[in-house]
Amino acid sequence: MKRDTLITSVVTVDRSGKASKQDLVAVEEPLEIRLGETTISVTMRTPGHDPDLAVGFLFTEGIVEDPAQIISVRHAETEGNPRQAGNTVVVELKPGFEVDSERFRRNFYATSSCGICGKASLTAIEVSPRRPMREPAPVFRAELIHSLPELLRQSQAVFDRTGGLHAAALFSAEGELRGVREDVGRHNALDKLIGLGLRNSLALGESLVLMSSRAGFEIVQKAVMAGVPVLAAVGAPSSLAVEAARRFDITLLGFVRDGRFNIYSGEKRISLDPN
Amino acid sequence: MKRDTLITSVVTVDRSGKASKQDLVAVEEPLEIRLGETTISVTMRTPGHDPDLAVGFLFTEGIVEDPAQIISVRHAETEGNPRQAGNTVVVELKPGFEVDSERFRRNFYATSSCGICGKASLTAIEVSPRRPMREPAPVFRAELIHSLPELLRQSQAVFDRTGGLHAAALFSAEGELRGVREDVGRHNALDKLIGLGLRNSLALGESLVLMSSRAGFEIVQKAVMAGVPVLAAVGAPSSLAVEAARRFDITLLGFVRDGRFNIYSGEKRISLDPN
Repeated sequence: MKRDTLITSVVTVDRSGKASKQDLVAVEEPLEIRLGETTISVTMRTPGHDPDLAVGFLFTEGIVEDPAQIISVRHAETEGNPRQAGNTVVVELKPGFEVDSERFRRNFYATSSCGICGKASLTAIEVSPRRPMREPAPVFRAELIHSLPELLRQSQAVFDRTGGLHAAALFSAEGELRGVREDVGRHNALDKLIGLGLRNSLALGESLVLMSSRAGFEIVQKAVMAGVPVLAAVGAPSSLAVEAARRFDITLLGFVRDGRFNIYSGEKRISLDPN
Repeated sequence: MKRDTLITSVVTVDRSGKASKQDLVAVEEPLEIRLGETTISVTMRTPGHDPDLAVGFLFTEGIVEDPAQIISVRHAETEGNPRQAGNTVVVELKPGFEVDSERFRRNFYATSSCGICGKASLTAIEVSPRRPMREPAPVFRAELIHSLPELLRQSQAVFDRTGGLHAAALFSAEGELRGVREDVGRHNALDKLIGLGLRNSLALGESLVLMSSRAGFEIVQKAVMAGVPVLAAVGAPSSLAVEAARRFDITLLGFVRDGRFNIYSGEKRISLDPN
């Protein structure tokens, strides 16, 4: 297995002078995701949980419609260059399941008559196969949500010794941490978490995802595709993230920190009742 | 001109209860970059300084070798849908300058015999046309570097009323702010800044770029392509960012905040002498 951190020499400078020391940095290396013989994507990621990343990516991008179609996920066998080893994941589908090659890249043109605008991006989600939202909607208590950033930090401290990783965590309505994944890229952290959830039947449809980062359109898109009802971000959302959350009726929370948060969409899933 | 922020309704929740209010979010919309008739890229960005973004992107991705080849940069004229207006930038090159269509997407395969690994990503930079590093190297005082995050914050406060934007700023060795650009995407913020620098001859080769974010490979790659000698990030660098900075001999600083920073590469351009 590839390392997720690397020791490097560094010169630290402060107002008292400088010093040489060894420090940890988060590893960033390309990962090739293959569907059978076909390269679908090359993404920069932190090694670790690559099969989760591959499954999550293929699903949230609408390339594989149903994770049950997947029969195997494995690292390709590579020889020679040690830096290449472990940087290719091969996903095999059950016989008879074909992938529409037009879906390899989301196409802003084909899905809408409006050309290049946010509306086309929303329409691209609409025409993709996604998990339905659960009804009745699960409800999360505000008091619980206030406590989540600290729960994430405690969990993340185990993994992130570099200050350089984004985290995505899955919580139940009772505050149980169902999974956490980290990466230099926030979209990868979320794809890893969704892949973990899909591969282990972690009840994505009844859970809250907390992102240590901001929430852009891509993050909301992935949550919508996975049927995650509540997306909470420590940072700010973008305009298109808010619009997508409202359009697809998921709950979007921003600035979840220091005992407060903003609800941008889906207030029905948040309860201020302490019990 | 398109708006860079949008007012949205939001429910704020803290331990004393909830309240409805109006809040600003950063706008995120797709931008199509065209070279003549050909679509080169569709990227999610915050509207504003789109011509800078287009020029910076085409140059740092190695698609346009020399900004002097560009004769015009303008928004496409669009009719009808108001959301589409202003989301396409058309760049025209001087007659006789052709663009190698193979460069439209960086190719991790063709540039190296090692397949998928960090080394291939570094080789991809090596074979690209990039601005040479200035010799002798400009030198930046540590005391000045300690002061830059506060200078950026003061400048950014004018633009960023949303908490949702990354910033990239260009400083001279005397601490003069030569330019600042913001975006929901940190790579876009840097492309906008580099585009600004290229279009206005802002002495990129003698300047320091400060990023309000972390520094991944892509950020170092863009600095290297633009011949920027010193890249300073408020957050952490990744392993491949450090490796790229060392390979191409630029100075990489991380965790530039609270009166301290780490030097990962290129210590020769940093002076601890207060004078």
